[in-house]
Amino acid sequence: MTLFGTDLPIIQAPMAGAQLSELAIAVSDAGGLGSLPCAMLSPADVRAELAKIGARRVNLNFFCHPPPRVDEVRERAWRDRLAPYYRALGIDPEAPVPSATRAPFDDAMFDVIAEYRPAVASFHFGLPAAEVVARVKQLGVKVISSATTVEEARWLAARGCDAIIAQGWEAGGHRGMFLATDLATQLGTFALVPRIVDAVDVPVIAAGGIADARGVAAAFALGASAVLVGTAYLACPESRISDAHRAALASGDETVVTNVYTGRPARGIATRFVREVGPIAGAPEFPRAATAVGPLRAKDPTIGPFWSGQHRIARTLSAAELTRALGA
Amino acid sequence: MTLFGTDLPIIQAPMAGAQLSELAIAVSDAGGLGSLPCAMLSPADVRAELAKIGARRVNLNFFCHPPPRVDEVRERAWRDRLAPYYRALGIDPEAPVPSATRAPFDDAMFDVIAEYRPAVASFHFGLPAAEVVARVKQLGVKVISSATTVEEARWLAARGCDAIIAQGWEAGGHRGMFLATDLATQLGTFALVPRIVDAVDVPVIAAGGIADARGVAAAFALGASAVLVGTAYLACPESRISDAHRAALASGDETVVTNVYTGRPARGIATRFVREVGPIAGAPEFPRAATAVGPLRAKDPTIGPFWSGQHRIARTLSAAELTRALGA
Repeated sequence: MTLFGTDLPIIQAPMAGAQLSELAIAVSDAGGLGSLPCAMLSPADVRAELAKIGARRVNLNFFCHPPPRVDEVRERAWRDRLAPYYRALGIDPEAPVPSATRAPFDDAMFDVIAEYRPAVASFHFGLPAAEVVARVKQLGVKVISSATTVEEARWLAARGCDAIIAQGWEAGGHRGMFLATDLATQLGTFALVPRIVDAVDVPVIAAGGIADARGVAAAFALGASAVLVGTAYLACPESRISDAHRAALASGDETVVTNVYTGRPARGIATRFVREVGPIAGAPEFPRAATAVGPLRAKDPTIGPFWSGQHRIARTLSAAELTRALGA
Repeated sequence: MTLFGTDLPIIQAPMAGAQLSELAIAVSDAGGLGSLPCAMLSPADVRAELAKIGARRVNLNFFCHPPPRVDEVRERAWRDRLAPYYRALGIDPEAPVPSATRAPFDDAMFDVIAEYRPAVASFHFGLPAAEVVARVKQLGVKVISSATTVEEARWLAARGCDAIIAQGWEAGGHRGMFLATDLATQLGTFALVPRIVDAVDVPVIAAGGIADARGVAAAFALGASAVLVGTAYLACPESRISDAHRAALASGDETVVTNVYTGRPARGIATRFVREVGPIAGAPEFPRAATAVGPLRAKDPTIGPFWSGQHRIARTLSAAELTRALGA
């Protein structure tokens, strides 16, 4: 019996902006647990995707970041820093820019959970308020979240998480850091998983650097009860990444953790933009930094972000093939 | 049959300045492969330790860094940066300081290898010249070295290494980087081991974050043929670390990669000195940066360095107990 009752102990990592229900459906149908990232969707969008997912087991994923402080000086400095990129692409740096939307979990999303009762609700950047976590659990929905340190894992366990994702340094996309602030002390998967397994009483889900059956076996050897796989699924035809993103994943270029795209540290391919502006810069708070990058991305698809973990994907499999290969 | 003919596929990582033959002997007697770090020893010292080791299988470890360029401006700036620490400890910042010795592999050490023919000669920071590698191999001595990237692994394999250490980001002590220069793109053990296994035809030894039998099993699941364990052995009574180092390992403090102690990036406990001066600073080239830190260390043992990987060691075992526990 796997952690969440699926045939295989494989969870497809939710990847906001990179996938909708096609990927989740393919993974769930192949015996894993598919995930629908909701942070960049409206409640109506989520309902529409859930209608396609139907009765399948699914993990709905939400961000729960605090609302960003607006620091006009920092925002101005950031616009100035990016102005040469605007000008190079023929965009007026002073033109108004629509806000990038990455909404934290709220009552409207709770209503979606209450209506559809997914197998799992996962959170990134901590957890919602204690009473909200309790209400989600009362619905029979399992609650999980990501820890990047032992301290964060203990915090999540004490607040009722049914399982904890140990997000190692290798992982692609946003670091789930919510107590930790120092990137230099973030732990690799090999050290993080057993340390969290030893520190908490709930099951641990390993994430970061797992892209094939070897990684799944290794994660279980370290004490994990399931694995979360992102980058390998990103390369599948069922993801909705851009051609530029797909090319970047196939390029063999290495990744770095950078905050230049959104204001929070996240691992992606070291593009020219990341190398020139970052990898870590004085960007506005998440998700406000993303707003100023938006027009650049729209005009030049090579700007990025191209989220990716530290594995390189040698060949493209369908999500079903990948799920079965991971579970082999 | 293990990689180097020992009962257990466990290699004790050579830790210069932290151990002599007692540790190597205890590990080899327990069925692993003990290592003697030679970088801070004279050939006479190495011979004296080898006399104690006797007929046991052993790995002799050498640095092969290029001779540092002397940059008087940088040296002056470094002395100035550290001057407040000198003054706080009542040391004259302008007094001459004896050079810190970390000698690269040379003819005198080759003669030691030729005389004792250890099972293995391991190198850090690349390899000696091709003809020297060939002469060592002709003696029947296996040659290994560390790779921190796939590119470094391919380079080592092409130059005749009999096996390659995949040194993941979690590993304590000096990063073996010799082609790579960008710390931001260094790979965690979970991603590095399978990527190197897939890239080269020689056996791969996993290093970084392995401190118990779970880690050994996980490394083998990723395709490794042996493991290299450092930090866990550092905590053993057979190591020669200071009381301050032992206390730092037990403190639960996290580690960072820093160049403030020697000029090369190395993972150790994030001491006050590291946090204030680094973790990465404009230090003179390895090993010259160590010279200026020497008098501080001599006067105040809490300065560090306290090399350590990302694992925390919960209980102190003897080296024999640890070796058997790793092999279980």
